[in-house]
Amino acid sequence: MKLKIKDMDIATGGPLVAVMNNKDAMKFDIHHLDRIKIKKGKKVETVVVGIAESSKAMPEGRIGVYEEVVDSLKLKNNDKVSIMLARKPLSIEFIRKKLDGKTLNKNEIDQIVWDIVHNKLSESELTFFVAACYTNLMSIDETIMLTKAIAKHGATLKLGKYPVIDKHSIGGIPGNRTTMVLVPIIAAAGLTMPKTSSRSITSPAGTADAMEVLAKVSFPINKMKEIIMKTNGCIVWGGSLNLAPADDKIITVERTLEIDAESQLLASIMAKKYSASSTHILIDIPIGNGGKVKNKEEALKLKQAFEEVGKRLRKHVRVMITDGKQPIGNGIGPALEARDVLWVLRRDKRRPLDLERKCIAMAAEILKMTGIKDSKSKAMEILESGKAYKKMKEIIKAQNGKIFDPDRIRIGKFELDIKAGKSGVVKGIDNRTIARLARVAGAPADKGAGIYLYKHVNDKIKKGEKLFTIYSESKHKLRFVKEAIKKLPGTIAIK
Amino acid sequence: MKLKIKDMDIATGGPLVAVMNNKDAMKFDIHHLDRIKIKKGKKVETVVVGIAESSKAMPEGRIGVYEEVVDSLKLKNNDKVSIMLARKPLSIEFIRKKLDGKTLNKNEIDQIVWDIVHNKLSESELTFFVAACYTNLMSIDETIMLTKAIAKHGATLKLGKYPVIDKHSIGGIPGNRTTMVLVPIIAAAGLTMPKTSSRSITSPAGTADAMEVLAKVSFPINKMKEIIMKTNGCIVWGGSLNLAPADDKIITVERTLEIDAESQLLASIMAKKYSASSTHILIDIPIGNGGKVKNKEEALKLKQAFEEVGKRLRKHVRVMITDGKQPIGNGIGPALEARDVLWVLRRDKRRPLDLERKCIAMAAEILKMTGIKDSKSKAMEILESGKAYKKMKEIIKAQNGKIFDPDRIRIGKFELDIKAGKSGVVKGIDNRTIARLARVAGAPADKGAGIYLYKHVNDKIKKGEKLFTIYSESKHKLRFVKEAIKKLPGTIAIK
Repeated sequence: MKLKIKDMDIATGGPLVAVMNNKDAMKFDIHHLDRIKIKKGKKVETVVVGIAESSKAMPEGRIGVYEEVVDSLKLKNNDKVSIMLARKPLSIEFIRKKLDGKTLNKNEIDQIVWDIVHNKLSESELTFFVAACYTNLMSIDETIMLTKAIAKHGATLKLGKYPVIDKHSIGGIPGNRTTMVLVPIIAAAGLTMPKTSSRSITSPAGTADAMEVLAKVSFPINKMKEIIMKTNGCIVWGGSLNLAPADDKIITVERTLEIDAESQLLASIMAKKYSASSTHILIDIPIGNGGKVKNKEEALKLKQAFEEVGKRLRKHVRVMITDGKQPIGNGIGPALEARDVLWVLRRDKRRPLDLERKCIAMAAEILKMTGIKDSKSKAMEILESGKAYKKMKEIIKAQNGKIFDPDRIRIGKFELDIKAGKSGVVKGIDNRTIARLARVAGAPADKGAGIYLYKHVNDKIKKGEKLFTIYSESKHKLRFVKEAIKKLPGTIAIK
Repeated sequence: MKLKIKDMDIATGGPLVAVMNNKDAMKFDIHHLDRIKIKKGKKVETVVVGIAESSKAMPEGRIGVYEEVVDSLKLKNNDKVSIMLARKPLSIEFIRKKLDGKTLNKNEIDQIVWDIVHNKLSESELTFFVAACYTNLMSIDETIMLTKAIAKHGATLKLGKYPVIDKHSIGGIPGNRTTMVLVPIIAAAGLTMPKTSSRSITSPAGTADAMEVLAKVSFPINKMKEIIMKTNGCIVWGGSLNLAPADDKIITVERTLEIDAESQLLASIMAKKYSASSTHILIDIPIGNGGKVKNKEEALKLKQAFEEVGKRLRKHVRVMITDGKQPIGNGIGPALEARDVLWVLRRDKRRPLDLERKCIAMAAEILKMTGIKDSKSKAMEILESGKAYKKMKEIIKAQNGKIFDPDRIRIGKFELDIKAGKSGVVKGIDNRTIARLARVAGAPADKGAGIYLYKHVNDKIKKGEKLFTIYSESKHKLRFVKEAIKKLPGTIAIK
């Protein structure tokens, strides 16, 4: 069958998709979500078909193609193409196998990941894979194969250095901006730490969002390498590097149901470390409300899985289980967190000591892993001597940044103080509510928006004293915060 | 945020979808597959958002909307609309609950079905629901709630008659065109049988495809009612009646992985019977290769489930387990099957006796269920006296058909005889291969295409005698058949 191209002038953001009129589809026995081959000249591409019910949506004799197909076949409006029914990708059978509770082998997992990366699966098929791995948890063997496959079908960073340090904090705890303190300490110690971070998905800020307040974070992989060669470290956004493109697509689907299968969490984190050729990896598992890990039992199980996967991938993996029952640091939101970090690095008296303590403990653990003795004193010395701050300035400069002075960071000019209704001791801070309010105030899109905490758990407070300030970049959003806070009482519990 | 409408001029066939530029999305912290509310005047609709990465795909300041959204909000190109972030539909939480292996209650199932029917779920979310029910099988209670919810959120057929007869054959066996013989027998017996059938999805013909050779099959529900009031029966396509729209959407997703959860199979079949107000239902479960049910154990389990669901829905349900190890009847493909049916009804000596025997057994079972004595002789008498054929003519006329004479049915003019390579006895006929060849020949889209079998299992055959003929409406497709048959040896086993 020959059809005329209609350029839909729109991208799907992934799957290769075309649209046919239902009469054309019927003639060829093609159903919604079937696959067809589109042939133009010698070029052939397999796409998933949507069926338009009306000829207004798609006239007979025409086939609508989305940008990914236009690009792949170099199509123009009104080009004539041939259409053939195509077979489903190989991985469909393997996805069904996993859905049936069976174990996948290396080739099967590899094929699935290849098909994901090359946009061969429809949204529905990819979802079946995610659901299958969620309900029929992958074994450690499968998780390792998945990790390697995700890393293999993406870019890799080769530095020719040893050791190469990496760290990852499991998300969900507001603040907790350890990476921006750790990288300069480790790099100042002479070790290589090529850190890629994510932007916020559901939190008030990711490390990439906070670092972006001080410097650029989006670089191609060769530029990232240059930065590392110059400074020993970097703090960049992982999203533009294509280190684990399959994982990025899997996460998009997971978000629709807010699920996160343990095997996919492991593979997702470890694949990126594997692609970055890391040799020594520290994993931070904070336990707390609003976090991914709710209790010690879950944390220990996850710790064991990380250690096992690490061993099998021949990586040095150390896991710290940490306290995540309240925000870490005082600032919540990109600018407020970046300011906390610079205060710690500059030994400013306003620095949050909880964040500093945690960073020193993590840095000591990393240094110890690489065989450095008295690692805690060493980490402390690097921080106190100003070497870490000096290194951070180098990194900021290398990443085209200009802000080194925390007082030059722009914080939202509209503010609202929340004061204690009674005197007593702070008994708890609700991570979820803090995160929610910071987001309503505009974080992470509005860099200056967020929350600044004056009190942490066990601090004494007097009636009328400030608990926290909410910052916003617009009056409008601050009004939303005022409304939201009425519905969210008990952000901070005092007894 | 205010955006200007870009009419995408394309339907999704279901979900309400809009597309935004990634910069606009970032400003509002909106991610791919998030939901937003679009407001125009007083009208508000919640849609799923796709994010376009380039401004070519979607310029800043504009929002692309698919037909379903255009219709719902009565939008025009360049209309200004307001955008707000929206919450996910209620059912997302329930879908996650099922995915976590928990049991759903009536309200939760009802909400999911409502959201499916009203296009509130994205393709990915609907897929999670299907996957959840597949891996965590629904209980009988849940299946009944699902059945009622599917029926409730769709059209219903009320005839004010008792009894109302219905039947369903579980698919996968080529031929097996029992409905077209049964409906005229039962209707001639004075009982009401408003039969809705499906078109083929993966087989060479569905009942609706075969009936369409003789008459129209697509009617609105009030016209269907008229036909039944006039003739006691009908054989129409269920797809245009909107009896179980949720089920139609679920099936589309199941097809992508070719899975069929038992609970959804039950709910799918029974919901349609429930919507049609059927009181007496006969279920035919054929066991055989290529069929949905592979062995007696599975068949008995399914029988029990059908009986239990029937009882709980206060319906008379009888289940027959039948032999499906070879095609039923001689013709495979819409026209060839319709001819078989008319031959049986007209007592033509060319009629397939296996199909006739099966139809008599089924008709007898139905008559017995309604309290008619000597039901087998009664069914036989109706068929042999020509009353069934007379009734079929009435039904064909009522459905705007004109073909009553089997010799006027147009069979594909290109043919290929397949002959026995040796003498012996037919030991087996591979259902899947027969179905595949008939489809390659053009069935069901080419009504005249298909296969005519001369031999069934246990028949003697001499070397060089015809096993079957393949019919096609084009030379081109017959050439495909010749290629396919080389790769598919052993269609019929002779020993």
